[in-house]
Amino acid sequence: MINGAMLIGDTERQAASRFQSHDPATGAALEPGFSSATAEDVAEACALAAAAAPGYAASDPESRAVFLEAIASAIEAVGDDLILRAMQESGLPRARLEGERGRTTGQLRLFASVVRQGDWLDATIDPAMPDRAPLPRPDLRRMNLPVGPVAVFGASNFPLAFSVAGGDTASALAAGCPVVVKGHPAHPGTGELVARAIQSAVTQCGMPAGTFSYLPGETNALGAALVGDPRIKAVGFTGSRGGGLALVRIAAERAEPIPVYAEMSSINPVILMPAALAARGTALAEGFVQSLTMGAGQFCTNPGLVIAVGGEALDGFVAAAGEALARSAPATMLSPGIHASFEQGVALLAQHDSVETVARGLPCTGENQAVGALFQTSAAQFLADAALGHEVFGSSSVIVRCADLADVVRVVASLEGQLTATLQLDQADIADARRLLPVLADRVGRVLANGWPTGVEVAHAMVHGGPFPATSDGRTTSVGTLAIHRFLRPVAFQNLPPELLPNAIAETNPWGLARRIDGIREGSPR
Amino acid sequence: MINGAMLIGDTERQAASRFQSHDPATGAALEPGFSSATAEDVAEACALAAAAAPGYAASDPESRAVFLEAIASAIEAVGDDLILRAMQESGLPRARLEGERGRTTGQLRLFASVVRQGDWLDATIDPAMPDRAPLPRPDLRRMNLPVGPVAVFGASNFPLAFSVAGGDTASALAAGCPVVVKGHPAHPGTGELVARAIQSAVTQCGMPAGTFSYLPGETNALGAALVGDPRIKAVGFTGSRGGGLALVRIAAERAEPIPVYAEMSSINPVILMPAALAARGTALAEGFVQSLTMGAGQFCTNPGLVIAVGGEALDGFVAAAGEALARSAPATMLSPGIHASFEQGVALLAQHDSVETVARGLPCTGENQAVGALFQTSAAQFLADAALGHEVFGSSSVIVRCADLADVVRVVASLEGQLTATLQLDQADIADARRLLPVLADRVGRVLANGWPTGVEVAHAMVHGGPFPATSDGRTTSVGTLAIHRFLRPVAFQNLPPELLPNAIAETNPWGLARRIDGIREGSPR
Repeated sequence: MINGAMLIGDTERQAASRFQSHDPATGAALEPGFSSATAEDVAEACALAAAAAPGYAASDPESRAVFLEAIASAIEAVGDDLILRAMQESGLPRARLEGERGRTTGQLRLFASVVRQGDWLDATIDPAMPDRAPLPRPDLRRMNLPVGPVAVFGASNFPLAFSVAGGDTASALAAGCPVVVKGHPAHPGTGELVARAIQSAVTQCGMPAGTFSYLPGETNALGAALVGDPRIKAVGFTGSRGGGLALVRIAAERAEPIPVYAEMSSINPVILMPAALAARGTALAEGFVQSLTMGAGQFCTNPGLVIAVGGEALDGFVAAAGEALARSAPATMLSPGIHASFEQGVALLAQHDSVETVARGLPCTGENQAVGALFQTSAAQFLADAALGHEVFGSSSVIVRCADLADVVRVVASLEGQLTATLQLDQADIADARRLLPVLADRVGRVLANGWPTGVEVAHAMVHGGPFPATSDGRTTSVGTLAIHRFLRPVAFQNLPPELLPNAIAETNPWGLARRIDGIREGSPR
Repeated sequence: MINGAMLIGDTERQAASRFQSHDPATGAALEPGFSSATAEDVAEACALAAAAAPGYAASDPESRAVFLEAIASAIEAVGDDLILRAMQESGLPRARLEGERGRTTGQLRLFASVVRQGDWLDATIDPAMPDRAPLPRPDLRRMNLPVGPVAVFGASNFPLAFSVAGGDTASALAAGCPVVVKGHPAHPGTGELVARAIQSAVTQCGMPAGTFSYLPGETNALGAALVGDPRIKAVGFTGSRGGGLALVRIAAERAEPIPVYAEMSSINPVILMPAALAARGTALAEGFVQSLTMGAGQFCTNPGLVIAVGGEALDGFVAAAGEALARSAPATMLSPGIHASFEQGVALLAQHDSVETVARGLPCTGENQAVGALFQTSAAQFLADAALGHEVFGSSSVIVRCADLADVVRVVASLEGQLTATLQLDQADIADARRLLPVLADRVGRVLANGWPTGVEVAHAMVHGGPFPATSDGRTTSVGTLAIHRFLRPVAFQNLPPELLPNAIAETNPWGLARRIDGIREGSPR
């Protein structure tokens, strides 16, 4: 079922140059070898995508929704082979990958419902006013159109939900954009199984062949060729800051610059407010270490920074967190490269003059394992060295001891853009939290209270985004239904004859949309 | 009333370095001299804007709407002094500027109504599902928040509607963002009068002093300092491609890159479909020349390209358009610089081997006057030299003679991104137009039928934008109410205690918004 092919439109093809994936738990190479796509393959996939774009964009919402659902069913039909291969390639446990598969197919079905519902079209009509003085008003109708072919770069840490058929692909296809995926080299077998599922759904649903292509490979040149191709109109990426910024640069230097939606790095500050810390420090410590070490800490939303006012209560939290971490088992990381980066980041903190090591987890028992790491420093020292605020991808976190709440505000205000910020607070903390909230909201995509940032719900109200450098474009999200808007742009139609008006804005409203007429949504209560 | 000051927050100040504006009709310098703001002035205005941002962002919709209305009233209260100064500085006639003032104040009041209505908040709630298996769903609420201080660069060609209190300023203030305007050096007196009106409205409405600052100046360094200031979070610009791209570059190279909404260049193709051309070529020629020469052709939406299948009907159109243009009066352009660019662009076309001059307008009678210019070439020649598709700002246009409809499609497909495309068509053209429409819509922000692109309605359904290089960000518009979204970003709030929830997403819905609950808008008909 896996043969290492590239899937270009409705064809499959083997490249001469090959690479292999590895089991991170053993370091062993996995069979088969995979195609390394070339610049010529990129050009062919992009040409097919461009040819498919008008036809796919013109698909009606029902057909497009059925297509998204067919992808979900095709992924499920792969069965346990998908889970087994993903376990081998990622080192992640079965339960986690089964959950991730459910999230991936659920996400596709959620986007199907969004496509059917039609709000994403933002259909807006300002009827003509032929008698208006001094000038008549023309008939003006606006709707969203897909931007065109989208390049998707999957992440290593979610081989299903942020990869070949992940949120970027699902939202781009929902928007009506063909997708060319650059497969992640850490899980090419998993990627191929999912890509074949999408390819089969394209055929089954009669969508244009170029609606989807899959290009495995392990070189930066492949990604650069894809983002540089003039037929690509937007890019979705989840990964490192370095990788994301490289794509942003390539996209900006094109003859026609295009948007890059790169979800890059975040240390996800957790603020322990005084009353909550005093009342339930030990429980918070346990919850924190669980969130920190889950999945070897390999989450964009991993809590890498804890901020609190120093004192007995914080001492108790630090002691309890240290004990919990010291009991935590080592966990296989996704790849040797990610493991090496983690080790390097932890070593920098451990050797830093201003940083004290609170605890490490239980020692390694195998290849590429992360041993949890917890550090502490003072607010003054944190503010003095920006390096202490850099992301260490994996289960590493720094506790910042503050003198008082003003100090907490200073530390928060010094932070770069983040995906999340978490407030642990009790009733007595509300007044202080109210002062802190605007400062937090200004820096993040999601503020949460009395929970942990890991675990990102796929929902309408979710924002998995945030100001730079959490993402390259803080106006949007890569998780949740709002993500569809990354791949749309508004177009106005003025005085078009009825025969030429697209369905979404036709006078007869054949799709039954709740449209905005003269600024008021049809069916609006006011 | 005009003294050449900078307005920084609620203060006014004279800079040591000065510049003067000129009457383009005579070349005479106008009194008084104006302050050239320095990098220190930029820093002070931006610091004030950053300090004002949280308070202004927290203003409730009613207060913010009243503030926008107060600006409109304060501009009206300047009275005829504003029109007289704008006439002197721009060379534009009274009727045009009176209309533009009405558009400017109408735009502010339209945004006031938008702010009150509240759809821009995109309030979205996914209620908690505590009993969901395998994991409970948290309470998730999303709303839009302002991005922070915005830098606005006015355009020379609309000294009121695209300048100090133009669409960029109105939409940024509506979004809850403080604004720092870099005044356009071609109309500093007009700018100062409007800036004083805004400053008085800030005081009158009790908004934070840093909500608005006005920095006149004529150097590129001033603009660079403003866009480079770390407290600025987005930029609105209308002007030349060179100017816009320079700001895009500065914004991308910041430690924290920010979005630049630059509306830059467009040649606004007009396609004359065969039946329409045959039936009403002479009337089309007259409408075309009127649109071409209006306001000395100084519109972003000026029809700089006409595309049609060659033949007798097109010959008739060309002859009639040439005759109409030959009767057109010369018109004073906005500045010597714009006039020189126009002359240069026209000379390049006139001397081009592949281009024939159809007609020129009546000769100059004064300084800085544009003489209309109409050229023609073939599709093959147009396709062979990209320079023929470059914008010549002013009343210059090129007619492209095609062999057949396939040729028309080829020419359209070769075009860069445009603000508009116009179809002149009759009933017999519908089938052909249906094939052409997706190609057009893919390249523009607005498609219009049987009208002319000049004249941009300020409305909900308007898109004054388009793919690069029409703008630097084709996902949006700089005219119409959708423009508010340029200065907003979504933030999610998870499991926040009711006491901390912003009004827009509070359980009690104190603002009575039509919110999206579990993906369905409240009050929605379905």
